[in-house]
Amino acid sequence: LQTVAIVGVGLIGGSFAKAIRAAGYSGRILGVSSPAVARQAVELGVIDSAVSLEEAAAQAELLYLSQPIKRILELLPRLDAMARPDALITDAGSTKSLIVSTARSHIKRALFVGGHPMAGKESRGVDNSDAELFRGRTYLLTPFDAADLERPPVIYLRGLLEKIGARVSVMSAEEHDRTVALTSHLPQLVSTALAAALSSNLSDGELIAAGPGLLDTTRLAASPYEIWQDILDTNRAAIDSALGTLLNELQLLRNALEQGNVSASFERAAGFRRRLDKVVNG
Amino acid sequence: LQTVAIVGVGLIGGSFAKAIRAAGYSGRILGVSSPAVARQAVELGVIDSAVSLEEAAAQAELLYLSQPIKRILELLPRLDAMARPDALITDAGSTKSLIVSTARSHIKRALFVGGHPMAGKESRGVDNSDAELFRGRTYLLTPFDAADLERPPVIYLRGLLEKIGARVSVMSAEEHDRTVALTSHLPQLVSTALAAALSSNLSDGELIAAGPGLLDTTRLAASPYEIWQDILDTNRAAIDSALGTLLNELQLLRNALEQGNVSASFERAAGFRRRLDKVVNG
Repeated sequence: LQTVAIVGVGLIGGSFAKAIRAAGYSGRILGVSSPAVARQAVELGVIDSAVSLEEAAAQAELLYLSQPIKRILELLPRLDAMARPDALITDAGSTKSLIVSTARSHIKRALFVGGHPMAGKESRGVDNSDAELFRGRTYLLTPFDAADLERPPVIYLRGLLEKIGARVSVMSAEEHDRTVALTSHLPQLVSTALAAALSSNLSDGELIAAGPGLLDTTRLAASPYEIWQDILDTNRAAIDSALGTLLNELQLLRNALEQGNVSASFERAAGFRRRLDKVVNG
Repeated sequence: LQTVAIVGVGLIGGSFAKAIRAAGYSGRILGVSSPAVARQAVELGVIDSAVSLEEAAAQAELLYLSQPIKRILELLPRLDAMARPDALITDAGSTKSLIVSTARSHIKRALFVGGHPMAGKESRGVDNSDAELFRGRTYLLTPFDAADLERPPVIYLRGLLEKIGARVSVMSAEEHDRTVALTSHLPQLVSTALAAALSSNLSDGELIAAGPGLLDTTRLAASPYEIWQDILDTNRAAIDSALGTLLNELQLLRNALEQGNVSASFERAAGFRRRLDKVVNG
């Protein structure tokens, strides 16, 4: 591999560039971003040079799309004609069904495999990028079909992801979206709803009663809407279904409280938490 | 003050004993607990001697009730006849309306003021007690009426709590219970419901997609039911109302998602979180 291009040099794209460099990749790293960000990325040494999308597509054997979801969706239909026929295109968008189906319709000459690094930071932007961002974190690949995983460029990408410390795993785009609706989008919405519900019901004088539990459960409520908008817009059905599951459970719990028998709910919940700890912490 | 008695020498009672000793209290500290715990508390130097409830009540000028809520509710009707007429009785129960109204009906000779230290630890028991447990944490006092705060034993208690580092604040028992239903009991139930809802919907292979947000929002789900049973049983109306508020907010959010306009909910939620951070971290 001689040329990698990062399209959207923010926290994720910048971290990917730094990480592969640190892992020994010695080819060129091109970056496509707004002029200000591209200049900053070059100055920081994150990318070797800032180029246009057309130049990047014409040169790169690996195109890493790390823009917001809707920008990726806009880009994919134009990309196949620009890209090298031997290119591998992958993306880092947080929802996958729409991206993968759009790619399936439009990426015909090049090869596409969807991706989603389960990594992030509170501070965004290329200036917060970090070669260690992916270390120890799950990196989900969502191919068109499992056979793509055996193709050399995808084998190479997978090896590269493992070299930067990611734990690579494979899911279909649909399973991915159903899963993250439950593991990521639902917790965000629960935290948002809890904080919004409390906002008009507690004075500052009452808030002094807050303990670590409230801080934990409302931490996600600080997330800016701008990073959630695309996610929520592109995973509506799975999120609606996840919300329905939670609403049922809350109603069940409310009825059980009235009857004084919530121990079964507590036991199921504690059992899930133990299982989660085991999966996450090994 | 020459004699303090701790009734229920667990994490909270043991920490109170250690904390007042560390803060310079030089009188006797008696402890009432099961024989095994009382022996352990003496061996650890947390209390000076283990006595019966009758002995403790006959001698102590300050009775600190740090048992589970229902044990406190059982004890209060019997305590007035045993206690010294000049005694101050206070408790550390996590709900206050039922305790304060029970005390109001039964504590006639001695003086009673309710209390709730917003402090705790994951590990319970006297062997985990800690003289620093209350430092920097809110300690709510819930008097029968505000005039009690001017009586010398209550002034003394308040000073003692400040000496051990607690931030003392005053609420009516009803405001306390409405407030903690929102700041503590609702977050617990949300976390329980979220974890219970996910338990039957995610395989271990899918759980690898979990990130820090799911860990934060389900941390409370590990809480054992035994410490919540009394709380939930003695604050049902306020908790039901808090759950109703949350269910409305979630339904609102679900409808807004369908219409693609959830930004207002995100903004209210983020505003609450900023206010919470300011109150908690100053």
